[in-house]
Amino acid sequence: MPITITGFQTFDLRFPTSQQLDGSDAMNPDPDYSAAYVVLTTDSDELSGHGMTFTIGRGNEVCVTAIRSLAELLVGTRVDQLMADPVTLYRKITGDSQLRWIGPEKGAVHLAAAAVINAVWDLWARIQQKPLWQAVCDMTPDQIVSCIDFRYLTDALTPAAAVELLQPLATSKAKRIEQLQDSGYPSYTTSAGWLGYSDDDLTQKCADLKTRGWSHFKIKVGRDLDDDIRRCKILRREMGDDAFMMVDANQVWDVPQAIAWIRELAKFQPWFVEEPTSPDDILGHAAIAKAIAPIRVATGEMCHNRVMFKQFMQSGGMQVCQLDSCRLGGVNEVLAVMLLAAKFQIPVCPHAGGVGLCEYVQHLSIIDFVCVSGTLDGRITEYSDHLHEHVRHPVTMKSGRYMPPSDQGYSVEFTEAAINEFSYE
Amino acid sequence: MPITITGFQTFDLRFPTSQQLDGSDAMNPDPDYSAAYVVLTTDSDELSGHGMTFTIGRGNEVCVTAIRSLAELLVGTRVDQLMADPVTLYRKITGDSQLRWIGPEKGAVHLAAAAVINAVWDLWARIQQKPLWQAVCDMTPDQIVSCIDFRYLTDALTPAAAVELLQPLATSKAKRIEQLQDSGYPSYTTSAGWLGYSDDDLTQKCADLKTRGWSHFKIKVGRDLDDDIRRCKILRREMGDDAFMMVDANQVWDVPQAIAWIRELAKFQPWFVEEPTSPDDILGHAAIAKAIAPIRVATGEMCHNRVMFKQFMQSGGMQVCQLDSCRLGGVNEVLAVMLLAAKFQIPVCPHAGGVGLCEYVQHLSIIDFVCVSGTLDGRITEYSDHLHEHVRHPVTMKSGRYMPPSDQGYSVEFTEAAINEFSYE
Repeated sequence: MPITITGFQTFDLRFPTSQQLDGSDAMNPDPDYSAAYVVLTTDSDELSGHGMTFTIGRGNEVCVTAIRSLAELLVGTRVDQLMADPVTLYRKITGDSQLRWIGPEKGAVHLAAAAVINAVWDLWARIQQKPLWQAVCDMTPDQIVSCIDFRYLTDALTPAAAVELLQPLATSKAKRIEQLQDSGYPSYTTSAGWLGYSDDDLTQKCADLKTRGWSHFKIKVGRDLDDDIRRCKILRREMGDDAFMMVDANQVWDVPQAIAWIRELAKFQPWFVEEPTSPDDILGHAAIAKAIAPIRVATGEMCHNRVMFKQFMQSGGMQVCQLDSCRLGGVNEVLAVMLLAAKFQIPVCPHAGGVGLCEYVQHLSIIDFVCVSGTLDGRITEYSDHLHEHVRHPVTMKSGRYMPPSDQGYSVEFTEAAINEFSYE
Repeated sequence: MPITITGFQTFDLRFPTSQQLDGSDAMNPDPDYSAAYVVLTTDSDELSGHGMTFTIGRGNEVCVTAIRSLAELLVGTRVDQLMADPVTLYRKITGDSQLRWIGPEKGAVHLAAAAVINAVWDLWARIQQKPLWQAVCDMTPDQIVSCIDFRYLTDALTPAAAVELLQPLATSKAKRIEQLQDSGYPSYTTSAGWLGYSDDDLTQKCADLKTRGWSHFKIKVGRDLDDDIRRCKILRREMGDDAFMMVDANQVWDVPQAIAWIRELAKFQPWFVEEPTSPDDILGHAAIAKAIAPIRVATGEMCHNRVMFKQFMQSGGMQVCQLDSCRLGGVNEVLAVMLLAAKFQIPVCPHAGGVGLCEYVQHLSIIDFVCVSGTLDGRITEYSDHLHEHVRHPVTMKSGRYMPPSDQGYSVEFTEAAINEFSYE
């Protein structure tokens, strides 16, 4: 029986994380992790599609408004017809001739597009009774490429070249899936490094995380250089010289300032430097990357679409691709960016944390390993310890690694208790 | 008496322009020109601040929601304190620690920022009983520079360098104002060239506009090459070889396609080619510009902030700067882009048309000529014939030139009749 989308509900969920200074950094001192959440209802009692986009509090209402405008476009649509040629879904949601003016493909309307598009992917996976990652891994290279809108990409990557990239990996997927079922996908955590934490907190959290199996740690920097040096020293001391330390400036520097500041932190041997300047400044990132080499530049959590990623990769401004599952236009555009990264041989290390993001990205990293990159070398996916109790099927971690989820869909269905307690007026 | 902002009202105004295919182009086939409109109320009965952002229909509700979230931040604020150091206004509205996540400085929240920031500038000019352009022209170079957020700009332009650019023009402002009072600011029009018009419409509208004094004409292209060639021929025939013809592709091409297509239209000697590809594709624009020289590339109406403009100018991807009064974060960010353009010696030719945009940009072009560029050479501001009857103080055109407005404020106060008739449910 074909399934038809018959309506939708939206929810403005906000978790008061600012009270504990979880998530505090130089640019975002007081986030309240939030989800603009949509449930697509269907003509089947058992089937619904769940999608969300992530924000840090105020502004979540704007995304909810945009989700309503976009979800409306799907009411009356049959899922099998929409997904027969999956780029149709992307174009329908991001290409509305009037709505595109308030983007295009950026800002609130694109964050909302992620929620709506991902809700369809969730529904589509549930119809097949598979977790999302498995439903995608079961696609052929041609089918995966047919998810992607190549508009504005063909100077860097054509559909034919994309199929060619995927083809050599198509016969060995089962082996990599087995590997992940056995030992999981590696993660790193920011749970220790928030700027709002005291030195004692930092020391204690480091010890705790090390015990639990992590070897990659991220620390927030950029507010005060002396503070940064002191906190980097603590992290290095606690974690040891073999641990991987990443520093994250959350966009606080101008280009010349970034170069000078990073040189001061170079002695702590950061594995990469994240978001040294404006997320829009492609040429600025390229200038910084050139000046601080061999230290690598990581960015992407605020990179708003595939056209921007294309340029970051073309220009040499991005050595680590931290795509965001909610900022890009859903699974379709994530696949586009993963293929660009494969083309430019840049590791994809998705952004996560917040709420719901870890649940989303576990699927994406599996897809990247199984279908697109074929390797775990230099790949590591962000993880944060917070708020997992509010989704029905939270991530399972083992020794600091994401274990492949077995529940159907895309894993961001919120519990009734969370909806009741955290719905925002 | 200092004036305090005590509250605000918002309006979702939509004009059913899609019925006549006014405004139709290859990317936007059916726009309903719309304004997300805010009125800031004060503790004075006589004084209120009026601002709007422009959209093309669906999505206007998203901007209205965002305007409410931003305007709330101003309630209780004294205008003189806010404008004592005008960058404060910009940072307050664009830098909210939570709201910035849904931008930053892009998409719906930044379009909304334009409405709110411009409403304050309108109010500030009314308090001084001046039109906005005059209030800004009365500022010293230091005061103008103090409006600008230089974050992420200092690798291209520092505050000190900006003051140096303005200083030589400061003593001769009166002369240029007199020149404008006498003969106005040159405009061009797209009123003839919409894709939805028939060849007969095009011919007749050309004749009409020529009679009324225009010598610059823009035509929409990019849907079908043969159509484009036929329509360019008609335009050239009707307007003569001396007229300036601009072609506008509204983002429909990929980079290689843009280069090939423009070469086919080169024989009509376009004065510039507008929006050949994605508005986010800085490197793509630079590649196109290099390939089609000496034909120039114009872009900017969808360029979302000063960081993007900086890179377009640094990369050689933009030879004509078509900033948008509603897409940038209000007068503050427009001044930043004008100064960058002066630094890179790129003419500013603002985007207009739609509804309210002509009313806004007349002020901006005056400011650019009087304070920043000091020249009309190669400068020309867009104009379109539609919807002026809905604002209280519409533009005055003489022989195809904008005449400096004399009414107080920033000219986008809508009439009660328009609010009553075009408020959208």
